[in-house]
Amino acid sequence: MRAFHRMWADLEEVGLDGSTGGYRRFAWTRTDHDLREWFAGECAARGLDVTTDRVGNQWAWWGDPDAAVAAGEPGVVVGSHLDSVVDGGAFDGPLGVVSGLAAIDALRERGVVPRRPVGLVSFVDEEGARFGTTCAGSRVVTGSLSADRARALRDATGTTMAEAISRFGGRPDDLGRDDEALARVGAFVELHVEQGRVLDVLGRPVGVGSDIWPHGRWRIDVPGMANHAGTTALDEREDAMLGLAAAVIAARQAAQERGCLATVGKVDVAPGGVNAIPSSVTCWLDARGPEASSVRDVVDDVRDVVAEFDALVTEEWWDAATSFDDGLTRRIADLLDDAPLIATGAGHDAGVMAGAGVPTAMVFVRNPTGVSHSPDEWATTDDCLAGVAALTAVVDDLVGDCAA
Amino acid sequence: MRAFHRMWADLEEVGLDGSTGGYRRFAWTRTDHDLREWFAGECAARGLDVTTDRVGNQWAWWGDPDAAVAAGEPGVVVGSHLDSVVDGGAFDGPLGVVSGLAAIDALRERGVVPRRPVGLVSFVDEEGARFGTTCAGSRVVTGSLSADRARALRDATGTTMAEAISRFGGRPDDLGRDDEALARVGAFVELHVEQGRVLDVLGRPVGVGSDIWPHGRWRIDVPGMANHAGTTALDEREDAMLGLAAAVIAARQAAQERGCLATVGKVDVAPGGVNAIPSSVTCWLDARGPEASSVRDVVDDVRDVVAEFDALVTEEWWDAATSFDDGLTRRIADLLDDAPLIATGAGHDAGVMAGAGVPTAMVFVRNPTGVSHSPDEWATTDDCLAGVAALTAVVDDLVGDCAA
Repeated sequence: MRAFHRMWADLEEVGLDGSTGGYRRFAWTRTDHDLREWFAGECAARGLDVTTDRVGNQWAWWGDPDAAVAAGEPGVVVGSHLDSVVDGGAFDGPLGVVSGLAAIDALRERGVVPRRPVGLVSFVDEEGARFGTTCAGSRVVTGSLSADRARALRDATGTTMAEAISRFGGRPDDLGRDDEALARVGAFVELHVEQGRVLDVLGRPVGVGSDIWPHGRWRIDVPGMANHAGTTALDEREDAMLGLAAAVIAARQAAQERGCLATVGKVDVAPGGVNAIPSSVTCWLDARGPEASSVRDVVDDVRDVVAEFDALVTEEWWDAATSFDDGLTRRIADLLDDAPLIATGAGHDAGVMAGAGVPTAMVFVRNPTGVSHSPDEWATTDDCLAGVAALTAVVDDLVGDCAA
Repeated sequence: MRAFHRMWADLEEVGLDGSTGGYRRFAWTRTDHDLREWFAGECAARGLDVTTDRVGNQWAWWGDPDAAVAAGEPGVVVGSHLDSVVDGGAFDGPLGVVSGLAAIDALRERGVVPRRPVGLVSFVDEEGARFGTTCAGSRVVTGSLSADRARALRDATGTTMAEAISRFGGRPDDLGRDDEALARVGAFVELHVEQGRVLDVLGRPVGVGSDIWPHGRWRIDVPGMANHAGTTALDEREDAMLGLAAAVIAARQAAQERGCLATVGKVDVAPGGVNAIPSSVTCWLDARGPEASSVRDVVDDVRDVVAEFDALVTEEWWDAATSFDDGLTRRIADLLDDAPLIATGAGHDAGVMAGAGVPTAMVFVRNPTGVSHSPDEWATTDDCLAGVAALTAVVDDLVGDCAA
């Protein structure tokens, strides 16, 4: 497990923001470049072939993935992502990639000769921190995010995803569903730090994903009229900020009533002057819950409230509930001493792959505080190593001599 | 009046933002440089001597200001500012500068030989759009903003005012109260577009300022705890956005109850991710009203509400009511056919000068919609010319042969 510790230490400084203590690892940036170099270096050191697909996901192979496709038994892929939210933690994403490398090490130490190729993927832009769309890498590969829509996404400085990919040496014209890359994936298992406290409450280091809640994102545009804060009578104002306040409160209340989660985490105010009445406020509503109908009810409640401010609510995306592969999930849970099944409100590349018909499962590692998307996100070293052992056992089971 | 139209047309494109139709004329920028060049050119064409004081205010003189100081009868200064808020209108500021130049033209056409020098000032950074402190140019000259505090102010990119001045060729070390510049100002008259509809309701093109309401700015810091929007139970959240919503609603309600104005126009959310519960929200409260005690009550009401969110309310500045010079104001109102007196909630360089003991008055030009700090800010050409005529009469009265 020395390799695990060394890899973890190597990643520790990459994209760390000195002022917040959080990570800022955004897609198609200098930091992304450093992370890719790191990934390629680790894979090369293990003799794994690395290819980068058209959108920028990195795939490393132990064994020949195309021969396996030709033989009708494509490979087993593990992995996750290396990018982060703004001021994110160290574990969300990297734990899955590092654990995948460590699992390959462990299998080789054990002398396993895989019957099927073992793949390791590092998906690009999972968090969507730069372009506002999560799981962009897996969504483009599976076609659930169209090439045209992906190319047109803009970051805060106005750069499009097409420009970002192009400056990175990629060819945005080539984007689109990638059947060749998908065909190589016979099964996908993503290991991830838990983003809640279910495992902690149960006293178990490792769990297995059951499903991903239905969730979506809505943009709320509240119009106003710019005017001087010091001279405009209250009853002559159209103050967009009041619409924002109403939206925030309505979202919380509706989520509480309907057993869902709702969050307003991003706000744009124009013109944004201290002494200017806002002429427009845009905010984003993130809503999730166990039942699709309840989540939609939350959004409808918010829509009703902000209608009084002539606000427009636009659905930016919607993912219905994603269930992971039943057989694969049961097989993994059995293998891991009846590991508990966990439903999650968080989206993952694994959810996108499952939605595209790839047999997919998730393995979660205990998070003692439940905190995620924050510098405080954390898992104990013992639990991380338990995660590696679990992932090793799963891959061994799926590709080893004893595979079914 | 051809010169007025030409000057107005020359300024029309400077700092105009093509996407919003508003002006973005911020201090110590390329646009500021262009405006300064324009001002210096217009003054040079009229044979006026232009000097720039230590903070960057431009002063032009018809006559020798220092000889007048020595003779115990310092000059009469008109003027305003050329910078704008973010996406501001064309009139707030420039109308006073252009009208000052046009008034000098008119006096000369009339053959007036001034008994005292006539000055024209263009104050730097009146709107505070870049560094967040309004009237920075006049506040530094009068000493109400200390050199140390001014130098340390930062814009959104982290550049300090000291750095901005330095890159502009100035010497930030020299900042501080400027007794030499102040001594030259025997009286100051600022012409400004009205930022409300009092004159429109009264059917008068021109009015005279009576006083500036007490007003202040408070920063509200709401703490939270970053966490994942999709996995954190509602009752485990410390969501700073809820504190913002409460502050916005409390401010509006308190202002309504207490006959004041209160505005939240600027918001900073950290980390600002769509799927991240805000770990902190900072917003700014602008509050003004006819009575200082009522304004303070509004702030106390907001403070009480946000205390539930452990928010901190910090006063960033407070200006007590400013009354303009009684004798000067009455003299101007009489001269302008009993022009109506107008109190205003807006701060002005004239208020800062009055606060520093300079005999000061304001002339307002009708604004038919009352809209200000917006691309829709507007006055008719007839009213603008009536403003020039009024300013000409005022200066003639104060410096001409018929002066008291």
